[in-house]
Amino acid sequence: MYKVKVYVTLRESVLDPQGTAVKQSLHTMNYQEVQDVRIGKYMELTIEKADRNIEEVVNELCTRLLANPVIEDYRYEIEECVAQ
Amino acid sequence: MYKVKVYVTLRESVLDPQGTAVKQSLHTMNYQEVQDVRIGKYMELTIEKADRNIEEVVNELCTRLLANPVIEDYRYEIEECVAQ
Repeated sequence: MYKVKVYVTLRESVLDPQGTAVKQSLHTMNYQEVQDVRIGKYMELTIEKADRNIEEVVNELCTRLLANPVIEDYRYEIEECVAQ
Repeated sequence: MYKVKVYVTLRESVLDPQGTAVKQSLHTMNYQEVQDVRIGKYMELTIEKADRNIEEVVNELCTRLLANPVIEDYRYEIEECVAQ
């Protein structure tokens, strides 16, 4: 069994209105030291061992569903663990 | 200047309908090996150095705005970097 952590972030060149809104809220709350906020997604997947290479599967999941490769980048960490 | 990465996840005991929906989509797409999906938030903050301890500031940001401590857990990584 694998525990896979996937991080999806907007590409640098893409505007992040959600991040801007959070930054403005923080400024309103008097945290002037916050200069920038970018918001992304974090996903934890539990995947069973199969015949296929796990990295290949995860890349496919990311490009086909979890991330939009046009505007988002993704990275992942795979951790193998023993089934209980 | 600090680069802070914040990970916000739903507590184990809280249902994650978004994760369940993604899992079902993956099953429909024939990725039967995916057993579980949990979805969280990932945030990158750029924070200027101030008089206060950075960890204290980040904990405050998380509990006051970025996470809902009733249903969510958070963890963070702080990286100090030289301003350009």
